[in-house]
Amino acid sequence: MAFHTSDTRLDPIYSILETEQLDAVAFVPGPNFQRLFTANFHLMERPLVVIIPKLGEPAAIVPDLELASFEKLAFPGNVFGWKDEEGYQDAFQAAAASLTQLSNAPQIGLEAQRMRVFEQMALQMALPDARFVDAHAAISSIRLVKSQDEIEHLKHAIAISEAALEATLQQIEIGQTEKQIEAILLNELFAHGADGLAFDPIVAAGDNSAEPHATARPDYKIKSGDALLFDFGASWQGYNADITRTFFVGEVSEHDRAFYETVLAANERGRKVSKAGLSAHTVDDAVQLVLENSQFAAFRVHKTGHGLGLDVHEAPQIMRGNHQELEAGMVYTVEPGLYRPGECGVRIEDDVVVTEDGIQCLTTFSRELRIVG
Amino acid sequence: MAFHTSDTRLDPIYSILETEQLDAVAFVPGPNFQRLFTANFHLMERPLVVIIPKLGEPAAIVPDLELASFEKLAFPGNVFGWKDEEGYQDAFQAAAASLTQLSNAPQIGLEAQRMRVFEQMALQMALPDARFVDAHAAISSIRLVKSQDEIEHLKHAIAISEAALEATLQQIEIGQTEKQIEAILLNELFAHGADGLAFDPIVAAGDNSAEPHATARPDYKIKSGDALLFDFGASWQGYNADITRTFFVGEVSEHDRAFYETVLAANERGRKVSKAGLSAHTVDDAVQLVLENSQFAAFRVHKTGHGLGLDVHEAPQIMRGNHQELEAGMVYTVEPGLYRPGECGVRIEDDVVVTEDGIQCLTTFSRELRIVG
Repeated sequence: MAFHTSDTRLDPIYSILETEQLDAVAFVPGPNFQRLFTANFHLMERPLVVIIPKLGEPAAIVPDLELASFEKLAFPGNVFGWKDEEGYQDAFQAAAASLTQLSNAPQIGLEAQRMRVFEQMALQMALPDARFVDAHAAISSIRLVKSQDEIEHLKHAIAISEAALEATLQQIEIGQTEKQIEAILLNELFAHGADGLAFDPIVAAGDNSAEPHATARPDYKIKSGDALLFDFGASWQGYNADITRTFFVGEVSEHDRAFYETVLAANERGRKVSKAGLSAHTVDDAVQLVLENSQFAAFRVHKTGHGLGLDVHEAPQIMRGNHQELEAGMVYTVEPGLYRPGECGVRIEDDVVVTEDGIQCLTTFSRELRIVG
Repeated sequence: MAFHTSDTRLDPIYSILETEQLDAVAFVPGPNFQRLFTANFHLMERPLVVIIPKLGEPAAIVPDLELASFEKLAFPGNVFGWKDEEGYQDAFQAAAASLTQLSNAPQIGLEAQRMRVFEQMALQMALPDARFVDAHAAISSIRLVKSQDEIEHLKHAIAISEAALEATLQQIEIGQTEKQIEAILLNELFAHGADGLAFDPIVAAGDNSAEPHATARPDYKIKSGDALLFDFGASWQGYNADITRTFFVGEVSEHDRAFYETVLAANERGRKVSKAGLSAHTVDDAVQLVLENSQFAAFRVHKTGHGLGLDVHEAPQIMRGNHQELEAGMVYTVEPGLYRPGECGVRIEDDVVVTEDGIQCLTTFSRELRIVG
């Protein structure tokens, strides 16, 4: 008989080791780390890696200058510090040697969308017989269903974001550049209490709005008739808002109005159809059908949305082909968009939490077509 | 005879392929991408990978929704788009198949500190005979020596940061929490024109200042006699400031004053000793000796500094054992620190650019011991 640590914080990880038939998982600072230890570290050029084996004591490789902070975690295992001048490989070797109950040729799951190649290389050198597999989805599943406290954190991040957006709209004038408007938005986000940015905001007008991940231009001045798209979010205590609204500057053509209303109908469909028990595929399919059955079917580019929480893009991916079942407490974005290249893009994005019989929409900003500037 | 693309933007990469004896390099959005193409993309759950082979046309794997933005790069090679519903692996396979002049068992260099494990796994599946090596330092060497334009960008990011710090200090009062002060700083950074944050700022007082990478506490109120450490930076057009100043709240003890002056002497030594032709080791050694020869030798934790530019932590690492020669135009931080656990930490960080006969200090904020609050 063999035992692993009794720290209950790690229980979800031990379940995953069982289900996924893994001998260990290794992870790095980030959302999963924060969810497990309610503390986090910077992901930087100094590797900090935690290894949780199925049997025996966990091990952590920690840069010396993080040791004092790491100590506060009360990490249930052995900690191997390393100094800048000495490099990290010896600490990886010592950590590997401490995993005495690891089987030969162990199968080790990694957060493959988070961990970087050099961390895996250091692990591989220390555990030459190990086989590394992508366990990102499995490990991240510990964050799929949000607690009420997490929902409150998300609501707070969203409230900051929406207040910042309204304050920004009040300051918009024809002739401002995209970059100027982005600066106003950033200023308002932090004036309203953001801790950080969920991601670099997208502020895109006119033809630039037709690029889903456009960069704000310093030399493009918004003009009457332009679409003006904001995709942005505050982060607050690690939790991220992600909201998109598209406005029109000065006036809107009938064609663009119909374009907008089509996206809005798809957004409404996504919010209406969602509920626990459905698959992510079903939700995206319903949304895409609204777009496909419109006169603008040719301008679809992307899926309905993605999970949201400590990560900005996490599971569940709301897309055709993903037959994952939605559960009460999952949070994701509903963000259909249409993009006429060189002309106009519209995206309307809400953040929703799934309930037994539908959703609760966390975003509250109006979706009515609005003229600004 | 075989040819590669004649796009001169890729010349530095072809030199690296030659020097490092690599058959190809693969890289992802980030600082190197931005330096090569003067444009960038988000690094997200949708892989975007560029492969530059020594011979033949480059290949890029690009999510469909980024294709319009990617087109603007005028990428000199084949582009393989992929849709959310279909997944990315087919695009990796097609890209690999397009590399017809790649040798058997090619050696492929990766940005191992930037690329994530799942991107390497997709490459490995598409190129099963390839051997992947860490070429992070070699690839990033294209950013080692900064142009005058880059220095100007850094100066702008630093000017924003220093103005924000001064504005923050004006608002500090005894009894505020670390978290409140952090919020003021964030607000001032964006009010002064930051595009983004170089990293999550560190605002740490009292015992928390003794943790080099502390997190601001919502429940700790600054009090007379506390050290108050700020480590932060604006980013502007992709370029990052990184500055640390430590103040004292209300008053300072003689012991803490001596502690502060020791760090300041080490900082001054780092700025004085630096010049082109010296090694990074020599600079760190000179700085560490000031600390080691003081009464506070036991409280050293980290090296002198790191390179700074499009990345916050890049080469050259200013540390003992790194015998890399400093060249005019390299930019790095000089940030010695001392940390008395549970009591007090002091770090003083400047950003400098190396010149033939010394350095130009880009940060201008006073280092004189200052009482705030």
